[in-house]
Amino acid sequence: MTDDTASGSPKDSHYAKLRRAHRDRNRPPGQPGTPRPKRPPVPGKPPPAGHVWLYGLHTVAAALQNPKRRLHRLLATRNALARLEIDEAAIPCPVEIVEPKRLDSELGTEAVHQGVALEADPLAPHRFSDLSDARLVLVLDQITDPHNVGAILRSATAFAADAVVTTARHSPQESGVLAKAASGALEHVPQMLVGNLAEGLEELAREGFLTIGLDSDADADFETALTGEKLAIVLGAEGKGLRQKTRGTVDRLARLDMPGAIRSLNVSNAAAIALYAAHRHLTKTA
Amino acid sequence: MTDDTASGSPKDSHYAKLRRAHRDRNRPPGQPGTPRPKRPPVPGKPPPAGHVWLYGLHTVAAALQNPKRRLHRLLATRNALARLEIDEAAIPCPVEIVEPKRLDSELGTEAVHQGVALEADPLAPHRFSDLSDARLVLVLDQITDPHNVGAILRSATAFAADAVVTTARHSPQESGVLAKAASGALEHVPQMLVGNLAEGLEELAREGFLTIGLDSDADADFETALTGEKLAIVLGAEGKGLRQKTRGTVDRLARLDMPGAIRSLNVSNAAAIALYAAHRHLTKTA
Repeated sequence: MTDDTASGSPKDSHYAKLRRAHRDRNRPPGQPGTPRPKRPPVPGKPPPAGHVWLYGLHTVAAALQNPKRRLHRLLATRNALARLEIDEAAIPCPVEIVEPKRLDSELGTEAVHQGVALEADPLAPHRFSDLSDARLVLVLDQITDPHNVGAILRSATAFAADAVVTTARHSPQESGVLAKAASGALEHVPQMLVGNLAEGLEELAREGFLTIGLDSDADADFETALTGEKLAIVLGAEGKGLRQKTRGTVDRLARLDMPGAIRSLNVSNAAAIALYAAHRHLTKTA
Repeated sequence: MTDDTASGSPKDSHYAKLRRAHRDRNRPPGQPGTPRPKRPPVPGKPPPAGHVWLYGLHTVAAALQNPKRRLHRLLATRNALARLEIDEAAIPCPVEIVEPKRLDSELGTEAVHQGVALEADPLAPHRFSDLSDARLVLVLDQITDPHNVGAILRSATAFAADAVVTTARHSPQESGVLAKAASGALEHVPQMLVGNLAEGLEELAREGFLTIGLDSDADADFETALTGEKLAIVLGAEGKGLRQKTRGTVDRLARLDMPGAIRSLNVSNAAAIALYAAHRHLTKTA
C-alpha cells in the first residue's frame, strides 16, 4: 500500500541509508532517482535593535513613499531597484546594490524578498485623541497570525478604515512577514496598540464609536446592528473568538449571516466582510 | 551592525564550522549557545496512486461523516481519535492507532496533522446537469495557491454556494494542504473541474446563470451588477486577474467598491465579500 522503499522509511537499514546518501551526493542535479529532501531553510539574522526589515516590492515601494517612515538603508539587487520604479536619487536613505544571496543571508531563505529589503524604524503608534474625525475602526482581540493580520491590514486600507487597534501583547509585532502579507498597507492604515483591550473599547465609546463584536453565536444580524456614524468592529482569533471581558465590554454582539454547513470563516475573510458592510453603511449615512 | 559570528556566515572558517557543529551536537537541548538552525522539514511520501491523504481534526471529522467519500484507512494517535468524538465502531474503514512520528513520516513534518490522517479517494466531480436547482456558483480562473483555494471553499460552504468551478489545469489538486485550509469544506461544497473555462461559463449561462467577473478596473459596482436569481461569480488570481478570454466571456464585469489607498484584496477576502453580497441579494429575491 505504501512505498516502503521511500527514503527515510522505518524499514531502511542503516547501511541502506548511508548507501543512498552517498549515491545522492554524487548524482548530478536534475538526474532522476530517489527524491532529495528540500534544502533546509536558513533563518535570517535579527534586524539591528529597534529596527525592522521590510521586504517585497509592494511593501518596500509603499514604505519609501511614506513620509512618516524613518528609513535607514535599502538593500536591493540591480534588477529589483529598477522594478521599484522610484528614482534612486529620490530615495531618502543610503542604497546598497547587492546580490540576492546577501538578502537571503540577512532575511533568511524563506522570506519572499523579491530582491529588496529596507531597514527602517517601526511606525509610531496612533493615539485615541487622533480619532476625532475617524468613522471606522477595526479592533483585533489577540489575533496572532501575522499572515491573517497582514491581510486584515490590507482590507482595512482598501475600505478606508481610520485605524486598527491591537493589544500590545498577543499580537504580531510589526515584522517582515506581517508587512509582506499587508502588501504595503502598513504604511496607510494607522495602528494603535493598547495595553488593555477593554479600556481601549471604553475609550472608543467615549470618542463616540459604537463598538460591535463579531460573534457567530450572537442573536443580532451584523447588518441590522450597524447604526450611527462611527463604528468600531471587534474581531477575535479563529477558534477562540472574543475573550469574555471583550464580549462584556462591547456595545453589541452580532453575527454575519451564514446559511451553510460551516458557520465560521477564516478571520481575515470575516474582517473583509465586516469592513465591506460597515463601509457601505457609513457611505449611506454620510 | 550585523552579527558576523552567526552560524553559517561567510566569515566562518571550515574548521570553525566543524567545531561549532560538534559542540552543538553535544549540548543538551535547551542549553543556551549559538542558535541552531531550524530542523529541516522532512517531506512526506506520496499517497498511494489515485488516493489522497486528508489530515487535521476538522478535515478528517468532516470526511468521516460524508457518505459520498470513499475511505481506505484512518491512522490516528490514541488521543486524536478521542478528540474526533466519533464512535470508533461507526468509522467505516480500518483504523490504525499510531504514534505521531508515523504520521510525520507519511505526511512530512510540515503537515499540521493534529494526530489524524485519513487515506481516501478524491471526491467525484459534480456535473453541470446537477445545477438545475443551484442559485450560487463560484468560478475560479486559475487560482493556484492551495491556502487561498482552501479558504475560498470554506467561505463558499458558509454562504451555501452550490458549486465551485475550477479549471482542470492551473488549479490546486485536492490535497492535504488544500483540505486542511478548507477546514472540512471539501466535503460540503461540490467542486467541478472544466477543461476550458470559457466553455464552462457558456454552459453556466445556458443553465440560466448570470456570470459576473470581478475586476477592479470595471465601471460597474458589484452590488448593482447583482440581478436575477442564479449567479455565477468569477474570480481571477491575485495580481493577474481574469484572463482576457474569461473577461470576454462573462456577462458582466464589476468591481467591489473600495475607497482606500489600496484597491486590491487578498483573493480569498474578495471571494468572501462577493459571496456575502451575492447571498444577500439572493435572499432578497427568494
